[in-house]
Amino acid sequence: MSRYGKRAGLTVHEHEPFNAETGPAALAEGPLTATDAFYVRSHGAVPEIVPAAWRLRVHGVVERELELSLPTLREAFRERQVTATLQCAGNRRAGLIAIRDIPGEAPWGAGATGTATWTGVALADVLALARPRREAAHVGFGGADVCPEAAPVQRFGGSIPLDKACRREVLLAWGMNGEPLPPVHGAPLRAVVPGYIGARSVKWLDRIEVRTKPWAGYFQHVAYRLVPEDGAPGPGEGMPLGLVALNADVLSAADGEKITTGPVEVRGYAFAGGERYVARVDVSLDGGASWSQAELLDDLGPWAWRHWRIKLDFARGEHAILVRAWDSSAATQPEDEAALWNPNGYVNNARPRVRVRAA
Amino acid sequence: MSRYGKRAGLTVHEHEPFNAETGPAALAEGPLTATDAFYVRSHGAVPEIVPAAWRLRVHGVVERELELSLPTLREAFRERQVTATLQCAGNRRAGLIAIRDIPGEAPWGAGATGTATWTGVALADVLALARPRREAAHVGFGGADVCPEAAPVQRFGGSIPLDKACRREVLLAWGMNGEPLPPVHGAPLRAVVPGYIGARSVKWLDRIEVRTKPWAGYFQHVAYRLVPEDGAPGPGEGMPLGLVALNADVLSAADGEKITTGPVEVRGYAFAGGERYVARVDVSLDGGASWSQAELLDDLGPWAWRHWRIKLDFARGEHAILVRAWDSSAATQPEDEAALWNPNGYVNNARPRVRVRAA
Repeated sequence: MSRYGKRAGLTVHEHEPFNAETGPAALAEGPLTATDAFYVRSHGAVPEIVPAAWRLRVHGVVERELELSLPTLREAFRERQVTATLQCAGNRRAGLIAIRDIPGEAPWGAGATGTATWTGVALADVLALARPRREAAHVGFGGADVCPEAAPVQRFGGSIPLDKACRREVLLAWGMNGEPLPPVHGAPLRAVVPGYIGARSVKWLDRIEVRTKPWAGYFQHVAYRLVPEDGAPGPGEGMPLGLVALNADVLSAADGEKITTGPVEVRGYAFAGGERYVARVDVSLDGGASWSQAELLDDLGPWAWRHWRIKLDFARGEHAILVRAWDSSAATQPEDEAALWNPNGYVNNARPRVRVRAA
Repeated sequence: MSRYGKRAGLTVHEHEPFNAETGPAALAEGPLTATDAFYVRSHGAVPEIVPAAWRLRVHGVVERELELSLPTLREAFRERQVTATLQCAGNRRAGLIAIRDIPGEAPWGAGATGTATWTGVALADVLALARPRREAAHVGFGGADVCPEAAPVQRFGGSIPLDKACRREVLLAWGMNGEPLPPVHGAPLRAVVPGYIGARSVKWLDRIEVRTKPWAGYFQHVAYRLVPEDGAPGPGEGMPLGLVALNADVLSAADGEKITTGPVEVRGYAFAGGERYVARVDVSLDGGASWSQAELLDDLGPWAWRHWRIKLDFARGEHAILVRAWDSSAATQPEDEAALWNPNGYVNNARPRVRVRAA
């Protein structure tokens, strides 16, 4: 176990701040990702927080400012649980770097994602006590983590539209998979915003700012924006990311694995993101000329991915397993990974392709 | 003016039931589509309804059944207006038929869409009076129009999830663009479900059924489902359509038009559908090798398309104007129209391509 409570086998991109992704075998263990295998994306060191002194400040365009201790949060509001998949906007950046280098950004593979059951209170209930004023339109989350990469150096933060903030699935969470939220995942309190990019589920949350405009800090106004292929990142450049994109992966077999000939069960996940659900997952062994439908497994509710499986017949030789997921708007994943290249390497949701050798 | 109050110039696919689409020039007139140019998709003849005898029945899993007259609807609930784009799931089917024939389905071009300001009451307010029971999960809409194409012959209908039905943008509408709703568009009352395929905005509405399961009638259980390319339509086959897909079109110049050389303003629309907004529209004259960003015009709110424009420089000769819209989840339109072919010809949202000749 590493000092952050993680099992061996994670791919560590950076030790300080800690950034590590989950391998496909750990993701394949089940639809809920074990906490000790769950990916970590952080922009600053884990802040030292004394729980007894910690307060959540709710301010901005509200009728009533609040300062809530942890006991008050637990006692004054109804406890809720939501099972939600988190996925980093930089997930699968390595596929884009393979097309053209992206200096200064870590080469995340497909493991910057995971699903957990989160326990806490609804942000909506806290907002109802603070009473957003008429002009309120966004809800900002401020973390306690200081992020040296930001210019200027600042704490992490970001905002979501008020309309989303008032839906009951958005949590202020102190629990993860039935245990206290670990420090590396944001203890004592983090936001969990199902359907949005991971960056909006702000960790080490100590400030909620109800705003008239979106968050003006670095991690929403400069980073986490999709800049056109020929553009340059900068303040306000490109489109702000928010809703997380439809995505999928093959979790077993692994890329490059040797498998047996004959029928082999292939497994993976599909995640619709936003307010959508996974409607279908297709798998092809002939480069997309024909497709077979995978079986969708456990339904953990509207905010979680679906694991899937399909038995395919492998002749001796090399095969590429190609996958396309469909969401409930009948949208499917892009075919051409190269066309998704962008200067920050966000939102690679091309159809995954895993190569295996049957012998 | 035709007997349904439509101007000349619409493409009429069928006279009885009346089915007609709007031409690009009429769509280009402005972000609101004139009522006399607005497309009509119907599956049965316009029913004869005596307004004084008409009642809206609200029943199913509710605490209190309702029978509401038009005066009661107008007096008992707050009047609301929503500007919303409607788009038929069969819009642009002609592009799919060009790839492989789709017998029995009309070859709709790109004009089965339009945007209007709708006036009525929020379905949510009516539901609040009826009080859906705990097991309620869907809200069905029953129309008065008898549809001979259905098996068995039945009235038109469909349902949406209760969660969507309780959002204030879903209207029971009696007004369109500031005038009384015309008979061909569903008078005395229709549903308007922004962000969903047009088929859920049921016309000639006389029945709202709160349900535990989705609508079991023909137009949701058999039709309006996306069947895999190699599948066959049938009860429960394929995925039910609901959220409308990201789409766009060039409205001027028209396909095949002769234009002048030099700078020419190109205009079109983009529509994000679902709960998303249009984040960017790109236009290419070199087949997608490079893209320029169009300017987004009037913002009519979260449920309406965005018109856009861009000035492009045309050398003498043939050109293809290629467009891709992006939504707020960083999803863009599919590249390959052929890959979208399906047995009913729904959801063609490939990147539009318009050919012009500059001289």
